[in-house]
Amino acid sequence: MFKALIGAEKLKDSIESISTLVDEARFRLTPQGLSVKAVDPANVAMVSFELSKDAFESFDATEGELGIDLTKLIGVMEMAEKSDNIELELDEASHKLIVRMRGLAYTMSLLDPSSIRKEPKVPTLDLPAHIVIRGEDIKRAVKAAEKVSDYMSMGVKGDVFFMEAEGDTDKVHVELGKSQLIDLQGTDAKSLFSLDYLSDMSKILGKSNEVNIDLGKDFPLKIRIKIAEGHGEVSYMLAPRVESE
Amino acid sequence: MFKALIGAEKLKDSIESISTLVDEARFRLTPQGLSVKAVDPANVAMVSFELSKDAFESFDATEGELGIDLTKLIGVMEMAEKSDNIELELDEASHKLIVRMRGLAYTMSLLDPSSIRKEPKVPTLDLPAHIVIRGEDIKRAVKAAEKVSDYMSMGVKGDVFFMEAEGDTDKVHVELGKSQLIDLQGTDAKSLFSLDYLSDMSKILGKSNEVNIDLGKDFPLKIRIKIAEGHGEVSYMLAPRVESE
Amino acid sequence: MFKALIGAEKLKDSIESISTLVDEARFRLTPQGLSVKAVDPANVAMVSFELSKDAFESFDATEGELGIDLTKLIGVMEMAEKSDNIELELDEASHKLIVRMRGLAYTMSLLDPSSIRKEPKVPTLDLPAHIVIRGEDIKRAVKAAEKVSDYMSMGVKGDVFFMEAEGDTDKVHVELGKSQLIDLQGTDAKSLFSLDYLSDMSKILGKSNEVNIDLGKDFPLKIRIKIAEGHGEVSYMLAPRVESE
Repeated sequence: MFKALIGAEKLKDSIESISTLVDEARFRLTPQGLSVKAVDPANVAMVSFELSKDAFESFDATEGELGIDLTKLIGVMEMAEKSDNIELELDEASHKLIVRMRGLAYTMSLLDPSSIRKEPKVPTLDLPAHIVIRGEDIKRAVKAAEKVSDYMSMGVKGDVFFMEAEGDTDKVHVELGKSQLIDLQGTDAKSLFSLDYLSDMSKILGKSNEVNIDLGKDFPLKIRIKIAEGHGEVSYMLAPRVESE
Repeated sequence: MFKALIGAEKLKDSIESISTLVDEARFRLTPQGLSVKAVDPANVAMVSFELSKDAFESFDATEGELGIDLTKLIGVMEMAEKSDNIELELDEASHKLIVRMRGLAYTMSLLDPSSIRKEPKVPTLDLPAHIVIRGEDIKRAVKAAEKVSDYMSMGVKGDVFFMEAEGDTDKVHVELGKSQLIDLQGTDAKSLFSLDYLSDMSKILGKSNEVNIDLGKDFPLKIRIKIAEGHGEVSYMLAPRVESE
Repeated sequence: MFKALIGAEKLKDSIESISTLVDEARFRLTPQGLSVKAVDPANVAMVSFELSKDAFESFDATEGELGIDLTKLIGVMEMAEKSDNIELELDEASHKLIVRMRGLAYTMSLLDPSSIRKEPKVPTLDLPAHIVIRGEDIKRAVKAAEKVSDYMSMGVKGDVFFMEAEGDTDKVHVELGKSQLIDLQGTDAKSLFSLDYLSDMSKILGKSNEVNIDLGKDFPLKIRIKIAEGHGEVSYMLAPRVESE
């Protein structure tokens, strides 16, 4: 069984943090909350999402799995005001999800979880450089980098975190020292990533005051943010593109 | 003769309540005010519009008829600020309408009223159920219903007013009890309507704090709102779609 | 050499006042400031732009010329907040322009000035009528005129400044007396201009509280505004279209 009540804005932010990578997802239910692990169709990026029952006004669930069309769910949530509460209830008989808000009930068919890509195994990575940065600083760098290239490198050199992109004639270089960051730890690192993915992610990250980045040398990137006032977490992993030199 | 002065926002709301159904309309002038009756090209919906001379800062008219291109008139009104007054004057010599605002005069050719569809006879309907509802509640239901179907039913069952739409896999159900409505009177009723029309109308209704709905069993719908601070009224009539069962 | 610091909004307004006519421009540098003179591809309009070093937080330049892709520069400036300062620096070695804002550096290739159309000679015109008008009044008249024609005439008759456009069936007439203008001097005048150009210019002029217009009889139009809080000036010259009668 599953029945839960949550603020519309929290739910919207949560779902969008997943839908930036995949259109459909398996939601894992436990009495403690919701979680999703998904990998994008091209196997380049992975999202790991957790939302504790404390993020909800009320939350009742037994172990289970729901296959959800994220695009459709976001469409339904657009009918809510930011300050509304949204009720989610699994109708066991029809196996549909009922989304309720202010007198309106939307009965949404669920996807067969087995038709959705299996949950990926999230690899444990030991990344040497750790940066804590404002989301808007990533968003701005990504937006600038897109003007000159399809790829952007992120790295640490001494006390400086940098993001840079180089096109045929123009280039973008962003440098943030310790004083402009929230934190910077670890050794030098540098990897190159696809801006397609960084651009999608930065729409989510841009709203966050504190983004945790773990970096290595030609290694995947790990980005973590808190959501739902600290009662949830989203982390993205993004494969590096190896520079062809 | 016709010469009148009116607040830009009142005029804009008035014209848009007609243009949601038809692009051209015959405006009937009397010393007491303006009125329009029009039916949409597909004969499914009808609008009946009345604006008293009390809605105007000043109003002088003799009996007459003006054929107006509503799309063009709305385009001209976009040049006004909300707080502007707009002067409308019929130039008898050239038979054109002069629209004036802050030093700008737009001289608009009129349409030959006989080239515009004749005024329909508005049927008198004796509908058993009467609902008074906030416009935004209709707008939200229509928006949700459009996600699942092309049709929406509206009805009354006991003390509840409902709007619902059913698609192949998903459905939308909105239920408003007496406490969530402004008023509810009469007996049970239910009819099915095209969302194309309800969607156009709900753009106008959505701004109104008090929408009067009259409903029957597989009968046309009648919707009435006050406009221009009570000095005018718009009513729509919409034919039902008979459920093919 | 060239190195300068300026408020983002001032720079953006400046560049846009030029890019409304041309996509690429030669910027002339002197120790006293920047200037541009450019003519549009069809030879119908001319812009003359001057920005004094006093518009800058700091300004250091020797005599020189920079070929700048205005569309690209505007794209880069979109990354700045209105309240940011933007630093422009010429990298002599690579002959590129570095645009810096809050830790972000965009290195932009310059165009070969000789590949850009030569600076036009700005003709000296002795125009008999002089009008000072609010920019928004021009913008509104142009917007209305576009609804009926591709051309608009501007003129002075006695104590009145008028703008008018005539289409096949409709016409627009705007009349502003001395009390609705900031100033009006000189003798009667009237010329006809292309609305394509007036529309582009009015986007810039619309933001200005004080637009100086000089008019003649079937003569070019000259329009001047101050920019950057009085530390710069943009003037446009627009060829008349001779009425075919």
